[in-house]
Amino acid sequence: MEFIINHTDPKSNARAGLIKTDHGDIHTPIFMPVGTVGSVKAVHIKELREDIQAEIILGNTYHLYLRPGTDVLEEVGGLHKFNGWDRPILTDSGGYQVFSLSQRRKIKPEEGVWFQSHIDGSRHLFSPERVMDIERSIGADIVMALDECTPYPCDHEYAEQSMNITHTWLKRCCEHFDNTEPKYGYSQTLFPIVQGSTFRDLRVKSAEFVASMNREGNAIGGVSVGEPTELMYEMAEICCSILPKDKPRYLMGVGTPANILENIAMGVDMFDCVMPTRHARHGMIFTWDGIMNMRNEKWKRDFTPIDAHSDLFADREYSRAYLRHLYVADEMLGPMIGSIHNLHFYLDLVRTARQKIEEGVFAQWKNEIIPRISQRL
Amino acid sequence: MEFIINHTDPKSNARAGLIKTDHGDIHTPIFMPVGTVGSVKAVHIKELREDIQAEIILGNTYHLYLRPGTDVLEEVGGLHKFNGWDRPILTDSGGYQVFSLSQRRKIKPEEGVWFQSHIDGSRHLFSPERVMDIERSIGADIVMALDECTPYPCDHEYAEQSMNITHTWLKRCCEHFDNTEPKYGYSQTLFPIVQGSTFRDLRVKSAEFVASMNREGNAIGGVSVGEPTELMYEMAEICCSILPKDKPRYLMGVGTPANILENIAMGVDMFDCVMPTRHARHGMIFTWDGIMNMRNEKWKRDFTPIDAHSDLFADREYSRAYLRHLYVADEMLGPMIGSIHNLHFYLDLVRTARQKIEEGVFAQWKNEIIPRISQRL
Repeated sequence: MEFIINHTDPKSNARAGLIKTDHGDIHTPIFMPVGTVGSVKAVHIKELREDIQAEIILGNTYHLYLRPGTDVLEEVGGLHKFNGWDRPILTDSGGYQVFSLSQRRKIKPEEGVWFQSHIDGSRHLFSPERVMDIERSIGADIVMALDECTPYPCDHEYAEQSMNITHTWLKRCCEHFDNTEPKYGYSQTLFPIVQGSTFRDLRVKSAEFVASMNREGNAIGGVSVGEPTELMYEMAEICCSILPKDKPRYLMGVGTPANILENIAMGVDMFDCVMPTRHARHGMIFTWDGIMNMRNEKWKRDFTPIDAHSDLFADREYSRAYLRHLYVADEMLGPMIGSIHNLHFYLDLVRTARQKIEEGVFAQWKNEIIPRISQRL
Repeated sequence: MEFIINHTDPKSNARAGLIKTDHGDIHTPIFMPVGTVGSVKAVHIKELREDIQAEIILGNTYHLYLRPGTDVLEEVGGLHKFNGWDRPILTDSGGYQVFSLSQRRKIKPEEGVWFQSHIDGSRHLFSPERVMDIERSIGADIVMALDECTPYPCDHEYAEQSMNITHTWLKRCCEHFDNTEPKYGYSQTLFPIVQGSTFRDLRVKSAEFVASMNREGNAIGGVSVGEPTELMYEMAEICCSILPKDKPRYLMGVGTPANILENIAMGVDMFDCVMPTRHARHGMIFTWDGIMNMRNEKWKRDFTPIDAHSDLFADREYSRAYLRHLYVADEMLGPMIGSIHNLHFYLDLVRTARQKIEEGVFAQWKNEIIPRISQRL
């Protein structure tokens, strides 16, 4: 992996760059659509590539490990071959499931995390070494270290202990990763994750530790778990001030369009979030003019296109009234249109942010655009 | 509407022709994807047009009347404008819902059918005149007369009474249709429906009555409601022997790929069925080599394309193992791929049948291909 910064914003810490991987280039700042079990929900690979113009997608190690399983993935030659996505992929480590499936897991600091499968109840140990092996089998271009994503709120003592476990696991991840080879002939790189909950002292400590591991990119985890937005921004800012400037920074699980722009301003380069696809399934549509709840009666007779100025076929071909009808009638085409629309919007958002950074006007543009894109229509 | 027969098969009653409508030509024999509430489930309009190459789709009057409602449809200028499908549309009359929603309707021979909405319980009268008005508001190119689709089994007395009601309603439909104008500037045509359950004498009587109405095309209803396949073929054969040769014949709600080919051989020109999309949602995939249950373990490691010889992107890009994984993991992309695949297959099936008729080899080809496409893989 290689990271090149081409432009920096004069009035913020935003930067525009390029990550080079064996599966192609990623222009940063970038948003990565989430493909939990290898499929970005309700979206064809062809649409991701041609219509949404995604440059990298995310897969979830925990879910892919359970289904289709590493045996199937190894046999076909990795996730790229399995799902047909030939551009870069990033896999998380199961650390988020430590948070989201907290009733189904037990942390054993010396071992790792024991998960009880949400499918059949079977028990599985995710040790740092095992997670690296699984991520080698999945074959993502960027793999994440095993961590504990702490819940919010969480007391200082718990957060510190948890952070220390995450650091120990990180060392084991790095060692095991560096002692193993990629399985499919292209390079993989390992990103460590800063934890420390919402405590400034812990975030400083964790970011310094993570930076000292000297990997090719770094991530900030443990945010977007219910904390106030201001605290999220504060933690991201502290971490960005410590994590090396010349390496990509990935803020995990964030967020709303406004969250993304604010964090770009702090120097974050990579984002992922289920929000565009999950909200789409519930009829929430993000646009440059604000957020539309498509189930609302107000769209019933709005026969104008979803977005006449968009370059997405779905935005021009379908009207708001028709999209509302599809959601109200529970037609699968509603979430399909919503998902492709929202992902296209998120990619358009980061692409536009990139342009504004290149033009040196990002900070001003961000402050102007955030109230508009955040309002409810 | 105009109907031109270009070729007839020397060894069967199959024919290949062209239906001309104000929204474009329909090559017969044709399969019409079902878009119950205006959307063909899980398929984009763009995919219907470009990938599936559908030439006409179906809408359900009962469902469209309830949602989005005729007021919305009139305001936008009809269903074509509402859903963005600019090729021909056919609407049924609610007659099928007389069968499928039998717990929610009461037939009053003098009035029509009283339905109790499956959405909010409200009561609605579908009289022959009202149905014609609704179908004028929806604006389909081909509209169906109000009938009662009888259940199977059904005794002769009930079937005869029901048939007589259908005939009375048909006269009222024709009269009202002929006394009203299309609402959106293009022509609409009304097809009557033969009923008579599985009784030869009633089918003869009904087909003769329907033929005497002298409309531009004719339909055969009351099949595909649970009767043995042989009885369906027998009824279709009787009806086709009476319904005029020079007008298109539409067999409603049929069926499997084999059913379609057998009925083409009897002289049927038009088909519709929810089977390709409904089966797709349950993981059943139709191919030229037979039917695949994609949830089956046997596809788990079959990394070959769904169909390497197909011209459909989804058939070439996705493997059987990946499609199985999507169904097993309950990912929406599974039904999306299955639906576009099955509809593409059905359109490919009737297109190939057409070619074989043009080449004069349809009957032989049909007998060879039916065992292959009907087997379980």
